Amino acid sequence: MKEALHHGGALDAAVARYGGARADWLDLSTGINPVPPPLPEIDAALWARLPERALEERARSALRRFAGAGEGAGIALAPGTQALIALLPHLLPPGPAAVLFPSYEEHGRALAQAGHAVTRFADLSDIPAGARLVTLVSPNNPDGRRFAPAAALALADRLAAQGGLLVLDEAFADAEPGASLAAEAGRPGLLILRSFGKFFGLAGLRFGAALGEPALTARIEARFGPWAVSGPALAIAAALMKDEVGTAALRDGIGQRAEWTRQALTAAGLAPVGGTALFSLLSVPDAAKLFEGLARRHILTRPFAYRPDWLRLGTVRDEREATRLTRALRAALADVDG
Amino acid sequence: MKEALHHGGALDAAVARYGGARADWLDLSTGINPVPPPLPEIDAALWARLPERALEERARSALRRFAGAGEGAGIALAPGTQALIALLPHLLPPGPAAVLFPSYEEHGRALAQAGHAVTRFADLSDIPAGARLVTLVSPNNPDGRRFAPAAALALADRLAAQGGLLVLDEAFADAEPGASLAAEAGRPGLLILRSFGKFFGLAGLRFGAALGEPALTARIEARFGPWAVSGPALAIAAALMKDEVGTAALRDGIGQRAEWTRQALTAAGLAPVGGTALFSLLSVPDAAKLFEGLARRHILTRPFAYRPDWLRLGTVRDEREATRLTRALRAALADVDG
Repeated sequence: MKEALHHGGALDAAVARYGGARADWLDLSTGINPVPPPLPEIDAALWARLPERALEERARSALRRFAGAGEGAGIALAPGTQALIALLPHLLPPGPAAVLFPSYEEHGRALAQAGHAVTRFADLSDIPAGARLVTLVSPNNPDGRRFAPAAALALADRLAAQGGLLVLDEAFADAEPGASLAAEAGRPGLLILRSFGKFFGLAGLRFGAALGEPALTARIEARFGPWAVSGPALAIAAALMKDEVGTAALRDGIGQRAEWTRQALTAAGLAPVGGTALFSLLSVPDAAKLFEGLARRHILTRPFAYRPDWLRLGTVRDEREATRLTRALRAALADVDG
Repeated sequence: MKEALHHGGALDAAVARYGGARADWLDLSTGINPVPPPLPEIDAALWARLPERALEERARSALRRFAGAGEGAGIALAPGTQALIALLPHLLPPGPAAVLFPSYEEHGRALAQAGHAVTRFADLSDIPAGARLVTLVSPNNPDGRRFAPAAALALADRLAAQGGLLVLDEAFADAEPGASLAAEAGRPGLLILRSFGKFFGLAGLRFGAALGEPALTARIEARFGPWAVSGPALAIAAALMKDEVGTAALRDGIGQRAEWTRQALTAAGLAPVGGTALFSLLSVPDAAKLFEGLARRHILTRPFAYRPDWLRLGTVRDEREATRLTRALRAALADVDG
């Protein structure tokens, strides 16, 4: 189980290790919606020309409405949220930082690489008083934990008073919009990261955004330089986010697939200990063995080095995949017991 | 003449100011090849999945061969060269830097924003001895100047000995491969930036690369984080760069269009003072007036605030556009004289 297998989007490595035809694998290693909506037609000029400001503005305003952010929020566009996670630690001078744990590990890794002194916290009440840069993921990955809006806002306000910043990663908020604090974006001390690829199932397109105080989002954009997001990505993202009927249907589809996934787990005698509509977290005695058993059946999941009992699974595409998952889980669990 | 008009890719702003239908404008404001090759088919999975490492590797190896870089060169992929120009100044501690002038101004701007003390130089012999980070553009934009390979390498070696770096921007080297130092990439003190969008006419796709010492290119990639380039961009760039027949045809087409453009200028009584196969630089008594006269005829060109006599023009697409350009130039020059 090499590192390459455990960070979303590395199906090739799994195929190389466990065999089988790539197309026959069921990739549940990410929290990406496996059924993207139909793509709008892409004008050839979008590939050819440098992305125009008007196109960026269209993507920004579609995102503002889709996410529910107010006019006071600045919006920095980026080629994926990951690029924002990598950049943010370099925008503030190295200092005391605190990251939620367990959570998406790239935040802490990027902060440490940039020279911040990173502390982990499990609860908002544990955050060291001196922390200037605090990262929260809500709903959290991989356990699906939600943080009370009032508590997150109080934290942002406290950090703002100290010249600090709360980075709130809402990568998995789209499937349940009530969970988002986007309406508060623009408030001092709060920067919200929004992913496009997970909810829309278009992670290869590379589009993400940071919502916050306009002075800060302008600094972020300046650090990427102009034209950081491709023309086709801007046009596709704008069109899909603007389509209210389409996004409602997408949300329903994600809900349906979450239900099929839940049923598949139940049928194998498993109950998730957490998750969102896009992934489920299992706690089992030996997750590495279950990972292995599923991989031998060409189902890729996500174990966690720091929690040998955890295994995360994305959602199935349809009932056929749900049945396959149940059968594989039963067989793999029997291996583990045997 | 607002700033927005003078940085490539802002046709919308010109249309808003000078009227006309967007499709009727002749946009000569950039050095981007106006006739891209046919796009390969894009597998839907490229939009959906996070870009796999194997796909990045394919793009890297296609670029290595296309650019003529050796196995010892590290290659950092980026969502366009502009993102590299914005990032590089933050990789070295602020210090004395020197940029070629006149040249592409984003280098100096990004260095100054990152806190470097930026000096300009007109000749390699003028570079201050203390400069640690030096930027050279070859062939240069907008004057098309080439620097002798031996002189550039000697500069890189001198900088390497002081722990410094020569950033060599080869954005316009593809149309005449003999001009490139890519075969030297990997050598200490040398980092070469390669654009994809200009030669291939696909600037909206956002793909660029830095070639250099593997330790440095690894640092660059770490700063972007994983998946900085979209899946479709990687696949398209890899396919087009690998196609040797296609790139040879592309080079011929660019040469033909450069010839048509030269003839159009000659017919209007103008001789470029510099340029490359993708753009021509004119020196005229009042470039702002010529810019204006052409814009009123819905031809967008590129003036330079620091050189009131300079106007840069991209290449025409075909002989029809060449004729239109000649007529518009004659009429606009008559306006200026009158």
